Amino acid sequence: MSIRTVAAKFVELCRQGKNFDVMRTMYSPDIVSVEGDGKETSGQRPVIKKSEDWGADKTFNGETVAGPFFNGASPDQFTVYFTFDITPKSTGKRKTIEEIGVYTVKNDKITREQFFYDGEH
Amino acid sequence: MSIRTVAAKFVELCRQGKNFDVMRTMYSPDIVSVEGDGKETSGQRPVIKKSEDWGADKTFNGETVAGPFFNGASPDQFTVYFTFDITPKSTGKRKTIEEIGVYTVKNDKITREQFFYDGEH
Repeated sequence: MSIRTVAAKFVELCRQGKNFDVMRTMYSPDIVSVEGDGKETSGQRPVIKKSEDWGADKTFNGETVAGPFFNGASPDQFTVYFTFDITPKSTGKRKTIEEIGVYTVKNDKITREQFFYDGEH
Repeated sequence: MSIRTVAAKFVELCRQGKNFDVMRTMYSPDIVSVEGDGKETSGQRPVIKKSEDWGADKTFNGETVAGPFFNGASPDQFTVYFTFDITPKSTGKRKTIEEIGVYTVKNDKITREQFFYDGEH
């Protein structure tokens, strides 16, 4: 598949709210996930667990995804801009958080994701 | 200045529509600008001219900037998500285009910008 085909499938699934399907079917077994603070998590199972843990104390009301976007000098990458509409269970205060994801693809699988955001997520 | 100070100034000026002030005051003399097709333009003056040429056949109605966003593993970079509301003079048809910019900062100046988008810009 081309990077565009992989990226289009990624965005389509995210827009359907199937983020965990993305992780299970499109992530490489040795994916590296880099959060905003620079902390790396390696391996498909630990990365999925990180997302499960992140979601455990939140109600997820929806998301938007802009993209995918490309640059010819980085032919194995695509980028997206997300907004997530969440309600932390601790506060009950609904809010929207936003981030940019930079994804690296090799052999049709996502091998790295790096999230750029501001503040706590 | 910290990367956050530079990025905040960048976003503030862009939100005021002062994109050319950004280029004149915040770009390094040897900045490299990478468009979506991967083509590089080097040097502050050529990069400004590229933007002037890009805008010459368009009416610019406004822009939005989301960000700046950061990642601790890339401490010299910030990212933003832009939308530009433009009307190409050739068609007269107003439209919104969008892109992600990845900016690299050294010694308080922007030394590289890489734009990710889809299709013609």
